[in-house]
Amino acid sequence: VARAGRESERSSAPTIRDVATAAQVSRQTVSNVLNAPERVHPRTRERVLVAVERLGYHPHRGARNLKARASRLLGYRVPPTDAGGSNPVLDRFLHGLSDASRRAGYHVLLFTPDPDEDEIEAYDHLGRTTTVDGFVLSGVGYGDERIPFLLDRGVPFVAFGRSDVDRRYPWVDVDGAAGVATAVRHLVERGHRRVAYVGWPAGSMAGDQRHRGYREGLAAAGLEHRLDLEARVVDETRAAAEATSGLLGHDLPPTAVVTSSDVIAAGVIEAGRARGLRIGHELAVVGFDDAPVASYLSPPLTTLRQPLEEVGRRILELFTRELAGDRDDPGGVLVRPDLVVRESA
Amino acid sequence: VARAGRESERSSAPTIRDVATAAQVSRQTVSNVLNAPERVHPRTRERVLVAVERLGYHPHRGARNLKARASRLLGYRVPPTDAGGSNPVLDRFLHGLSDASRRAGYHVLLFTPDPDEDEIEAYDHLGRTTTVDGFVLSGVGYGDERIPFLLDRGVPFVAFGRSDVDRRYPWVDVDGAAGVATAVRHLVERGHRRVAYVGWPAGSMAGDQRHRGYREGLAAAGLEHRLDLEARVVDETRAAAEATSGLLGHDLPPTAVVTSSDVIAAGVIEAGRARGLRIGHELAVVGFDDAPVASYLSPPLTTLRQPLEEVGRRILELFTRELAGDRDDPGGVLVRPDLVVRESA
Repeated sequence: VARAGRESERSSAPTIRDVATAAQVSRQTVSNVLNAPERVHPRTRERVLVAVERLGYHPHRGARNLKARASRLLGYRVPPTDAGGSNPVLDRFLHGLSDASRRAGYHVLLFTPDPDEDEIEAYDHLGRTTTVDGFVLSGVGYGDERIPFLLDRGVPFVAFGRSDVDRRYPWVDVDGAAGVATAVRHLVERGHRRVAYVGWPAGSMAGDQRHRGYREGLAAAGLEHRLDLEARVVDETRAAAEATSGLLGHDLPPTAVVTSSDVIAAGVIEAGRARGLRIGHELAVVGFDDAPVASYLSPPLTTLRQPLEEVGRRILELFTRELAGDRDDPGGVLVRPDLVVRESA
Repeated sequence: VARAGRESERSSAPTIRDVATAAQVSRQTVSNVLNAPERVHPRTRERVLVAVERLGYHPHRGARNLKARASRLLGYRVPPTDAGGSNPVLDRFLHGLSDASRRAGYHVLLFTPDPDEDEIEAYDHLGRTTTVDGFVLSGVGYGDERIPFLLDRGVPFVAFGRSDVDRRYPWVDVDGAAGVATAVRHLVERGHRRVAYVGWPAGSMAGDQRHRGYREGLAAAGLEHRLDLEARVVDETRAAAEATSGLLGHDLPPTAVVTSSDVIAAGVIEAGRARGLRIGHELAVVGFDDAPVASYLSPPLTTLRQPLEEVGRRILELFTRELAGDRDDPGGVLVRPDLVVRESA
């Protein structure tokens, strides 16, 4: 599949390597023709330009900037805070990203779109005025419009998170499925057989992955996937507490719960406590994120920590490759979250 | 006092206005001499330069940049996340700051110092290479070395928070004393007479202000300040819970607790619940910050919300004035936090 994907990408968007092959020169020579043509013999130059023309090759604006007018700035849209808990780990993410940027000779430039401006226009505006060399996207999900928009304009970017858009683009994502499966295994190893899931409703990329991890974790342990041990709720403590109360009312209630977020885990703890269960003993709970709230909860929450320092490093690696125009395989990187064992499970 | 402070500043750091007065020209003429000397008659030019020399006037590098090579970037150091809960409202702060920056034609540039580099060197480095027009400082406190460092180098900045350094500089701060006093009044109006304080140890600027608000709130209500109703603890839920247990063990225990942070309030709630008290009924609790944790707690926390959108606006107002070299009165701005009443009090 990866091979087929690469081939189809090749036919739709030629790379500097394709041009080099067609013109029988090195990639450096192609780069010189585009950026410092005076260094290349006129005959070679023409051969390269013919290949560029014939293949319809478009170098990245960012790649040109690297030589000509690179700003060494990476644009990042500060997510709106009204989204309610959607960025529980923003501080760690920004720290990881800034740290990695510094090492790569970049700085992170924050922006918020003008309320009168379409969000996507803000990317276009910043991209066109070359205040930035490219972008890091977060909050990436199904049908993300920013991805084709930036690809079509040749604006370099790296996505934190995956989308289902039918294009190839560079991304880094935390492996939510592997994370929740690890949590299920941890619980099964401690003797739990009725492991419930309280997580976001179907339809969000991250939520669907975490839910898949739950099913895979059960399957790996030889446990049945029982729909009556599953509740899908929005990312709110109250909603999670109510849904959990329902699950705990069964004749054979769960003894452990995995979740799609620390916020939901807070609600599970609340519901368990309301029933008089000792959390960590009579009801085990595992969160996801390792947001600050995780260590403030009582008992402190066992949770899946997003490795955001590594995410930052990977984003900059891919971004640097993007700028170098090295795009036959934009590639994606999955990083595994770490299970942080505290007292709740 | 303000007047005296202003006068001493005037004698120690001459402003463009002082130069204009001494040379008997307008401020615009002084500015022209420094930025576009060809526009000024040689005789006037010399008179201004003599005044500049005699008074020891140093124009801001930032002010020169505004004409010559302004980057329109505002540097902000992402605070280290290991400081544990020291930035519970970073996302709202960054959103407020980015929003206000956009309106003022600026962008926020994030940086983290190289671990091998002194933190203060990082400011110097970014300032000297003029990647930024100036800085926003957060985490400002007693004896903050960054303030004299940047003042001495003429690097424009605005501090979020106050220090006790014996210099004048532009700052914006949330009025912690007024906030906690408001919380005490709220509780007294609801019939509480034994209002305790659980807050950070003496020695932090913000903590000392919040503690002062507690004492002022008691005094305004005609209540005695009883040291046995007070506990000073580090910003941790566990430590706060232990200290609160002690207070609740008194013969006449408190019926309400004000705190210096939401994290501490979480510990107070935990201790109250461990004693079987119904929070919001038998024990009222007020936090500070309105961090995400505030609404996840059970019951949701009444707290003092830092008005960070306004903080962002005020910072940009002062920064723009700094860049214009308008510094006879760098001035400070205090904004009041809002009491957000939820179920805990």
